Amino acid sequence: MAAVEAATRLLAAGHIAHIVRTRGVDAFLDELIERLGDALAVHEAAKVVTPPRAGFDYTLPNAGLLEWMPAMDLGRVVAVKTVGYHPSNPACRTLPTVVASTSVFDPATGRLVAVVDATLLTALRTGAASAVATDILAREGPVVVGIVGCGAQAVTQLHGIARVRGVERVIATDTDAAVAASFPRRTRFVDRPIEIVPPSDRHRVLAEADVVCTATSVDVGAGPVLDDGEHRPWLHVNAIGSDFPGKQELPVSLLERSIVCPDLVAQCLAEGELQLVRPERIGPDLASLVQQRQRFEGYRSALTVFDSTGWALEDMVVAEMVLDHAAELGVGTSVDLQDGTVDPHDPYLDVSS
Amino acid sequence: MAAVEAATRLLAAGHIAHIVRTRGVDAFLDELIERLGDALAVHEAAKVVTPPRAGFDYTLPNAGLLEWMPAMDLGRVVAVKTVGYHPSNPACRTLPTVVASTSVFDPATGRLVAVVDATLLTALRTGAASAVATDILAREGPVVVGIVGCGAQAVTQLHGIARVRGVERVIATDTDAAVAASFPRRTRFVDRPIEIVPPSDRHRVLAEADVVCTATSVDVGAGPVLDDGEHRPWLHVNAIGSDFPGKQELPVSLLERSIVCPDLVAQCLAEGELQLVRPERIGPDLASLVQQRQRFEGYRSALTVFDSTGWALEDMVVAEMVLDHAAELGVGTSVDLQDGTVDPHDPYLDVSS
Repeated sequence: MAAVEAATRLLAAGHIAHIVRTRGVDAFLDELIERLGDALAVHEAAKVVTPPRAGFDYTLPNAGLLEWMPAMDLGRVVAVKTVGYHPSNPACRTLPTVVASTSVFDPATGRLVAVVDATLLTALRTGAASAVATDILAREGPVVVGIVGCGAQAVTQLHGIARVRGVERVIATDTDAAVAASFPRRTRFVDRPIEIVPPSDRHRVLAEADVVCTATSVDVGAGPVLDDGEHRPWLHVNAIGSDFPGKQELPVSLLERSIVCPDLVAQCLAEGELQLVRPERIGPDLASLVQQRQRFEGYRSALTVFDSTGWALEDMVVAEMVLDHAAELGVGTSVDLQDGTVDPHDPYLDVSS
Repeated sequence: MAAVEAATRLLAAGHIAHIVRTRGVDAFLDELIERLGDALAVHEAAKVVTPPRAGFDYTLPNAGLLEWMPAMDLGRVVAVKTVGYHPSNPACRTLPTVVASTSVFDPATGRLVAVVDATLLTALRTGAASAVATDILAREGPVVVGIVGCGAQAVTQLHGIARVRGVERVIATDTDAAVAASFPRRTRFVDRPIEIVPPSDRHRVLAEADVVCTATSVDVGAGPVLDDGEHRPWLHVNAIGSDFPGKQELPVSLLERSIVCPDLVAQCLAEGELQLVRPERIGPDLASLVQQRQRFEGYRSALTVFDSTGWALEDMVVAEMVLDHAAELGVGTSVDLQDGTVDPHDPYLDVSS
């Protein structure tokens, strides 16, 4: 009878910050972009299974969404991220809009082998996914980056772009002036001029940028967050805010001129920009882009959109990566959450007095 | 800005054993039966939302099933149990077939407020559900209890029955002679004669019992685990092993004479005994039984089946109960899994050197 490692590893927000700080945030994101690219390059839907995500959406006690995003790498690992989306968090509490945790299971036994705070990791993997898409779809740098929505996700979006393209300058806007004003301080890593424009000038973001990222908490039915207008013919947009039926960031007229590449077709049709896209505008998905990179090189001179709803595969990759670093660095806590009992047929062995 | 309690509570298997031992396993199960009955008495599907469970089933690295079972008590709490079903666990490792954990979330923020080992709790809540059903559907005691399948779940099944009915004696069988032989030792709490019969005599279980429980790991397509035959006219059966498409414990001919009461109709139609039941044999569900108890009193003299596939509502009730006891007794561990950061818009606040 094989002895089973009973401990469950816990990586708290503080542990993860320590790991990222120790490795360096640039190096950490570079490795994540590489690992995600590697996972996509060999991706087969029959081996890495990611069912459609589901969740609870509600208005009590306040507007929110809690979703579970399961992923299985067949025979090897199961990771289930649970992610909350609560736009009132930043203003009402000292918490980000997106708060997440990932539970990692051993498919041989069903044991919970790790619980990982995935709040920073969600921001990082979303940035890494946009980096992979941008690297394939955007023109060669240096590029002008436009940002619409300057919250927590925009930080890692800009960072992801900056790891795959030289950045000439940044032009950014947000409906919340205070959030916009603090964006340059929060993104000093780019070390390039960051111009903040008011919402009334948001057409300039579209007009001047080579790469745009929309990362907003726009309400269902309240989009788009950009008006259609003049833009570079080779514009590439990473649209990461649409992740709910009826939510939409980009103008339909712009989508109709674009090649729209989804992270996951079925999910984007239900929750992403693809909700409003005619079938003939749907381009290759993220895995296909990576696997047939050469074939799609021409897209760099065309108008392209990466429709990023967030994919459980990305969460599994980043959870495993941080667990690897935690093991190497000896970071984290262990609890005997699920002991191997002496008699697996006797649930009362330890409870009878 | 409200300060947010940042700590996540962890209740490991050892903590839960300590709580149950301190309260006394009889008292703990009695309280759980009462709390579950109370939750069912006021149950409304619009307020306590339990979407159909989904999961991964696989044969690599060995045969297994990992399912997530989410429940939301609207405006108050979200609980997501993840439960593994790995029949090779007891023989190949010192682990039970069913290993589970429950994550509890605050729907106001999406924060993970607790992670609870749910291995013992799953066995207990399944026993409590059968106790609620047995109390309404079985004849007045003392009763002869028949057990088919003597593993971990059978222990809490017998215990649940024994909390709502006097037990005259027990007759039990299992295809694994060693598991059958140890059953009396594992169920000393009944303090009544327990007769073990070999599989060749399993017709005696059906013939002699007033209340039967089937709690087997029968393979898809390998059922039923009992042959149809002579039985008391008032026989009540708790069938708890069927929880997968194609899995089935009871003979169709017996089901066709029975009133089959599901825990959750949709789930039982997909995974439970209801898969093989004609619509006219489907009785009231568990919540209806509790809410209209008097109306169904006549069922005590009829052949009835409780089709127990396991309901996320039960997992939420038991998780909240054990967290209440943990708080009162000061048991458990806290980790700052998801800190409230100083700047919710800056994911890099703690990671930049």
